Amino acid sequence: MNEPVLLRAQLRDVTFGANVKVVEPVNLYGCTLSDDSFVGPFTEIQQNVLIGKRTRIQSHSFICEGVTIGDDCFIGHGVMFINDLFKEGRPAGDRAKWKTTHIENHVSIGSNATILPVFICEGTVIGAGAVVTRDLTKKGIYAGNPARLVRIL
Amino acid sequence: MNEPVLLRAQLRDVTFGANVKVVEPVNLYGCTLSDDSFVGPFTEIQQNVLIGKRTRIQSHSFICEGVTIGDDCFIGHGVMFINDLFKEGRPAGDRAKWKTTHIENHVSIGSNATILPVFICEGTVIGAGAVVTRDLTKKGIYAGNPARLVRIL
Amino acid sequence: MNEPVLLRAQLRDVTFGANVKVVEPVNLYGCTLSDDSFVGPFTEIQQNVLIGKRTRIQSHSFICEGVTIGDDCFIGHGVMFINDLFKEGRPAGDRAKWKTTHIENHVSIGSNATILPVFICEGTVIGAGAVVTRDLTKKGIYAGNPARLVRIL
Repeated sequence: MNEPVLLRAQLRDVTFGANVKVVEPVNLYGCTLSDDSFVGPFTEIQQNVLIGKRTRIQSHSFICEGVTIGDDCFIGHGVMFINDLFKEGRPAGDRAKWKTTHIENHVSIGSNATILPVFICEGTVIGAGAVVTRDLTKKGIYAGNPARLVRIL
Repeated sequence: MNEPVLLRAQLRDVTFGANVKVVEPVNLYGCTLSDDSFVGPFTEIQQNVLIGKRTRIQSHSFICEGVTIGDDCFIGHGVMFINDLFKEGRPAGDRAKWKTTHIENHVSIGSNATILPVFICEGTVIGAGAVVTRDLTKKGIYAGNPARLVRIL
Repeated sequence: MNEPVLLRAQLRDVTFGANVKVVEPVNLYGCTLSDDSFVGPFTEIQQNVLIGKRTRIQSHSFICEGVTIGDDCFIGHGVMFINDLFKEGRPAGDRAKWKTTHIENHVSIGSNATILPVFICEGTVIGAGAVVTRDLTKKGIYAGNPARLVRIL
């Protein structure tokens, strides 16, 4: 009979701004949560992620290494970020091949959205359940799989 | 060095019918779970949600304020409900602008589905991974993003 | 005032290979995790599931009864497997009507993907947010809802 190595979701090496709220259980490590940000339960945020001021990360979301999110953003429930495109038909293995994502200020991302490694410009809205596969450089509402422009804002 | 405010997922102000089963950890507050209902682990259910009799809420689902779900429904794993359409390009802020969702009896919603604020009529089936963006008033099977009628039941 | 029956996500009747890592909280029961496999936090794996050697199950995923996953696979974050097609317009009730899923070796499944009961052949890649509704017998990259072949590998 083998025994597994049991680890535990935790807060580890997290840099907190002022007045940050976190609802445990969460698995947060090596990330920075800026002033007045909020992180809901059942979330995971990996190392080298930056969450801006007053930004809310709702329950069930996963934010991978290489993501920066601006100020006053809203990340809905069950939103998943991706940094590895499986370019060679499998996980990259080498972290140097992971891609980055940059979300500007005042971006709102609907629940169950999936965000490939992209740039999303200020003030953009991503519909619930959308899959964002390309850079979004025009402020607007995007929805669908793959996400397409629904309306300019 | 700032310290965060640490809260904890919990059961708070929940009204339970008879013989309700809940698998913790969950974050349930201000909601009503009717007789013989079930709530799986890693779920969040917000205030003023009503879950009907014998209805099952499976793991990883999120049910927001303003949702009522009838009797004998099945809500799959990772199903996310939405109450804020970001109409003005951002979260509404004012809770009076949130929309409601009503799910009638005997509705089955597949895993990873996303449910915008809509009405879903009795006996309807939502396919796994569907994104429901409109009222569904005809009993049937709906799938896709956005969800479309696949077959009348 | 009724009191609910409170259960707790746990490890129960799990068969572990050598050097398995699990990040709690998780809800794993009656499944087999082979040598050097990994299971992230906020996951649920049901009975009679087999996870192959060196396979990684990332956070927030749900793997239902009837799924077998080969060696060296990568199951992303928030991936949901399905075993019940609601063929008669509701959950099957009878477990004998549940369908099985078989994932061969070296398969990579992107985050937020949804996997209906299917066969996926060796070396295949499923894009993030995809909904896989049919057997995939040709090694390639598949994406979209429903998932379609993007490129042969």
